[in-house]
Amino acid sequence: MKHIVDLSWQQNMAFETEMDGHKVTIDASPESGGDDLGPRPKKFMLTALAGCTGIDVIMILKKMKVVPESFNVIVEADVTEEHPKKYYQLKVVYQFKGKDLPMDKLEKAVKLSEEKYCGVSAVYRKAMDMKTEIRIIE
Amino acid sequence: MKHIVDLSWQQNMAFETEMDGHKVTIDASPESGGDDLGPRPKKFMLTALAGCTGIDVIMILKKMKVVPESFNVIVEADVTEEHPKKYYQLKVVYQFKGKDLPMDKLEKAVKLSEEKYCGVSAVYRKAMDMKTEIRIIE
Repeated sequence: MKHIVDLSWQQNMAFETEMDGHKVTIDASPESGGDDLGPRPKKFMLTALAGCTGIDVIMILKKMKVVPESFNVIVEADVTEEHPKKYYQLKVVYQFKGKDLPMDKLEKAVKLSEEKYCGVSAVYRKAMDMKTEIRIIE
Repeated sequence: MKHIVDLSWQQNMAFETEMDGHKVTIDASPESGGDDLGPRPKKFMLTALAGCTGIDVIMILKKMKVVPESFNVIVEADVTEEHPKKYYQLKVVYQFKGKDLPMDKLEKAVKLSEEKYCGVSAVYRKAMDMKTEIRIIE
């Protein structure tokens, strides 16, 4: 199977594409000469990871009949100072809100995503150091 | 320096985040139980790459006084059949439209992005096979 993304230059430094029927715009910051018509591209690497593992976890928890009040996936990435400015270390924080959430099931869902299902995580792990944290707030 | 993305679960399998002040929604497909409120997450890996190298190339070409009529960055990715379903091979096609475009400058701009500036490319190259193609259409 193939996935294809076709990004089309619009003006100055802005690009546009359609992903699964949804328009996505990318642009450089005004400090870099762009017009901020959309987010900077590199951070989409983190959004890809957070979304991939987030959907896995909420899907697995649903099957386990665990429904948090709220759920956030926070990805913190360290960026190198020199060119190419790239991520070299990631921390994925799974933050759940709710009363009496069963930690063992949360851990199992996160582990299943990270080790079995999340294809983004599987690629990044080959290229950099990755940490995981599970947080419950009440 | 750190980059942080905070993805917040909305409903069913939809997540939302704000990137550089722009709202981004991610969702699963209806076939996977989602509501298609936004694109699937994994493809954002490809958008990150296309945007990163696309902005580099158009910025470098501008300095070289080369302005194409149109410019697309097309990323084709092969996905594994088994879990975790991940990209294992990428091809980046730089497609320029214009008359008398100087191939040597296009090649130089692409090479500078791939070898010096694009931090997304630098990470993916550690994890998978990557190919490049430059196409000129008139």
